[in-house]
Amino acid sequence: MPIPILSCDRNSKEVYSRFLSGAREDLSSATSRILPILEDVRTKGDSALFCYTEKFDGIKLSKLTLNPKEIQTNVDSKTKEAFLRAKSNIEAFHMAQKREAWSKVIDGNRLGVKYTPIPSLAVYAPGGKALYPSSVLMGIIPAKIAGVQSIQLITPPQKEGIPEILVWLTQILEIDRIVTVGGAQGIAAAAYGTESVPKSEFIVGPGNSYVAAAKSYLSGQGLIGIDSPAGPSEVCIIADATSNPKWIACDMLSQAEHGEDSSAILLTTEVSFAEKVRDELEIAFRERPKRLEMKQKAIYENSSILVFPTMEDCIWFSNELAPEHLEIQTRDNDSVFAKIEHAGSVFLGPYSPVAMGDYISGTNHILPTARGSRIYSSLGVDTFLKRVTFQEVTKESLETLYPYVKLMSELEGLDEEHGTSVKVRTKGQT
Amino acid sequence: MPIPILSCDRNSKEVYSRFLSGAREDLSSATSRILPILEDVRTKGDSALFCYTEKFDGIKLSKLTLNPKEIQTNVDSKTKEAFLRAKSNIEAFHMAQKREAWSKVIDGNRLGVKYTPIPSLAVYAPGGKALYPSSVLMGIIPAKIAGVQSIQLITPPQKEGIPEILVWLTQILEIDRIVTVGGAQGIAAAAYGTESVPKSEFIVGPGNSYVAAAKSYLSGQGLIGIDSPAGPSEVCIIADATSNPKWIACDMLSQAEHGEDSSAILLTTEVSFAEKVRDELEIAFRERPKRLEMKQKAIYENSSILVFPTMEDCIWFSNELAPEHLEIQTRDNDSVFAKIEHAGSVFLGPYSPVAMGDYISGTNHILPTARGSRIYSSLGVDTFLKRVTFQEVTKESLETLYPYVKLMSELEGLDEEHGTSVKVRTKGQT
Repeated sequence: MPIPILSCDRNSKEVYSRFLSGAREDLSSATSRILPILEDVRTKGDSALFCYTEKFDGIKLSKLTLNPKEIQTNVDSKTKEAFLRAKSNIEAFHMAQKREAWSKVIDGNRLGVKYTPIPSLAVYAPGGKALYPSSVLMGIIPAKIAGVQSIQLITPPQKEGIPEILVWLTQILEIDRIVTVGGAQGIAAAAYGTESVPKSEFIVGPGNSYVAAAKSYLSGQGLIGIDSPAGPSEVCIIADATSNPKWIACDMLSQAEHGEDSSAILLTTEVSFAEKVRDELEIAFRERPKRLEMKQKAIYENSSILVFPTMEDCIWFSNELAPEHLEIQTRDNDSVFAKIEHAGSVFLGPYSPVAMGDYISGTNHILPTARGSRIYSSLGVDTFLKRVTFQEVTKESLETLYPYVKLMSELEGLDEEHGTSVKVRTKGQT
Repeated sequence: MPIPILSCDRNSKEVYSRFLSGAREDLSSATSRILPILEDVRTKGDSALFCYTEKFDGIKLSKLTLNPKEIQTNVDSKTKEAFLRAKSNIEAFHMAQKREAWSKVIDGNRLGVKYTPIPSLAVYAPGGKALYPSSVLMGIIPAKIAGVQSIQLITPPQKEGIPEILVWLTQILEIDRIVTVGGAQGIAAAAYGTESVPKSEFIVGPGNSYVAAAKSYLSGQGLIGIDSPAGPSEVCIIADATSNPKWIACDMLSQAEHGEDSSAILLTTEVSFAEKVRDELEIAFRERPKRLEMKQKAIYENSSILVFPTMEDCIWFSNELAPEHLEIQTRDNDSVFAKIEHAGSVFLGPYSPVAMGDYISGTNHILPTARGSRIYSSLGVDTFLKRVTFQEVTKESLETLYPYVKLMSELEGLDEEHGTSVKVRTKGQT
């Protein structure tokens, strides 16, 4: 049972609708399990954090935070070189996103915008096997460039100590502290603040369902800001017969490597090309059998090759899908990209597999999933900036505009005070 | 019992902490009441909308939507002139927020950003006495400028028909349709879509607690995007003795006019000035007794004059408060404003009462409340734009960067497929 090749057009809803459900993980059972934990952290602070860490991580901590500057690290030079190259590229791409204040005169008055950073950020890094140091770069660099003053890393303690690569990253990124508390209790510490852990106003970073449930619940209560909710990772690839079927298969498998619920959708117009990609997937399963069951489940059950009549149809479907990652490998990538409306991060041409953006090109890999790119953006400097609008009205303009304010406020039943607050400033008053 | 004048410094937490709670309305009971309504709309579509409209509004509709072009309106020319002036100023301010695509070469590769609009928007306008046509301008104009293609107005039906001013606004703003369904059922129609009501991806606009609960719940489910959650309206005023105490009192009352839970906080350094404002408030209560009880409750119970030792302390407290509206009326407004980090919309100088921004200056009046301006912005063109990032990696750069990707993906346990997807594109492969 290889990957399904499905011929369809824009009306074949029965064929493609399952890819458009945009389903997110159901967090309701995780939420009910974490609510008592959140409440304990809120009311008992540090002592709840010590207690849950012993219970869930089996570790008796003597203190909850570490100062990165006080920790010895011994990361090898090759690893340092790789992460420093990534850091430099991510910094260059995000520096270009900085915003300038502006003002202009509109109807006689000076109006404008300035941008200010959010005050504080927590970045969550999962423990155990889920070591993603690249996500630490992606979360922290845009915040530093935005000017966020206070940044802390939240991560579960580990018997063998916090991984050296994480500690070294917090050193070169000049992070204030490492909070060695994981799970829902770590998220609660950041949202409420405790004796040892200062409150953060915003939190980003991947985590398991308890972490996701805690982020979602606390954000809903207005206690902390979050990036867009994370779902299974997905890629959409628009390709024609000018592209390399083996490379396309590799890119689909690179997505499948994230988990059995990951999805890779190839959109093309040529059945013979689709068949080549299908065959390359089977070859790859034989050649690279690591985590075979997981990858096959992702490819056979959650992925598909959809063959549409025209390239315009492929573009239309990609916009319906609003994928997290979009690869475009066609005769004319720029003209296809010009028609793309909704996608998190786009990879153009044969030499831009998603893995390049995951690690090193400089774009951010924290992206909206589950069709979220219809309304949300990737993480960026804007995520950590607010637009503060301002105005300075002149005496003359207030005189001119008062009759309009009077009329409009009367219509809304707010003339007595709203209207008066302008009227008292007009000539002949006071 | 006039407004409290409280002397404090940065350590007087017992004095000011109640203003920093950032409490939002508790929507839990409203949420449990609306859940069956949402489910009915999701499963039964139009028939549920007809049914709930008859039940809650006492109106038997023959159809659920109106085409603005087919409705006769007769708005007087003075009213038209006022709203057209406001529209023109709001358009000018928001046009200046448009974003340009860019790209640059980073480490040999072309990286960039383009901005695309969200696909669709619903704007909610409450019915009955809560007629706020100005909010319709504020919600729709930035979306039109962002390029949102499909916009609908959701508003409860009324026995005497939809107010002409609303219909006329939907005509001049070229809105697709008016959906005459209010409350939670109106929000559900927009989020799920029904036979008559196309789904919208985003919803903005004020409403009662059922509307707020429906927006919050559906947004948490990933079904619709929302503006930041609305709380009671508030103003913070930083003023010194160079400002006019009567005008300041009017501005505080203009906030109090929104409801008894509204709040006005005056920050100053001079007790004698504070006393003058207090006296002006009492005079105003005698002179303008309309809705006296409500205004007095807002001023006496939820407002305060805080007298700090220095202007720096006032600025510090304003940043802690992160107010929705901030007025600065001092000797040197620009230098005070330069130190403001968190505020929704700022009003500089003696001729900029909040009412000018509410109606006509051009800034947006849909703003984050409940200390939300620490992390959220006012409604603007950015609200309706997404940042689509892209990259085109060159063959040469891929060769150079492959060793780094290999190393980083090994560290994350993702080398088999992530690493391979880059490796197959290097020289000597395939």
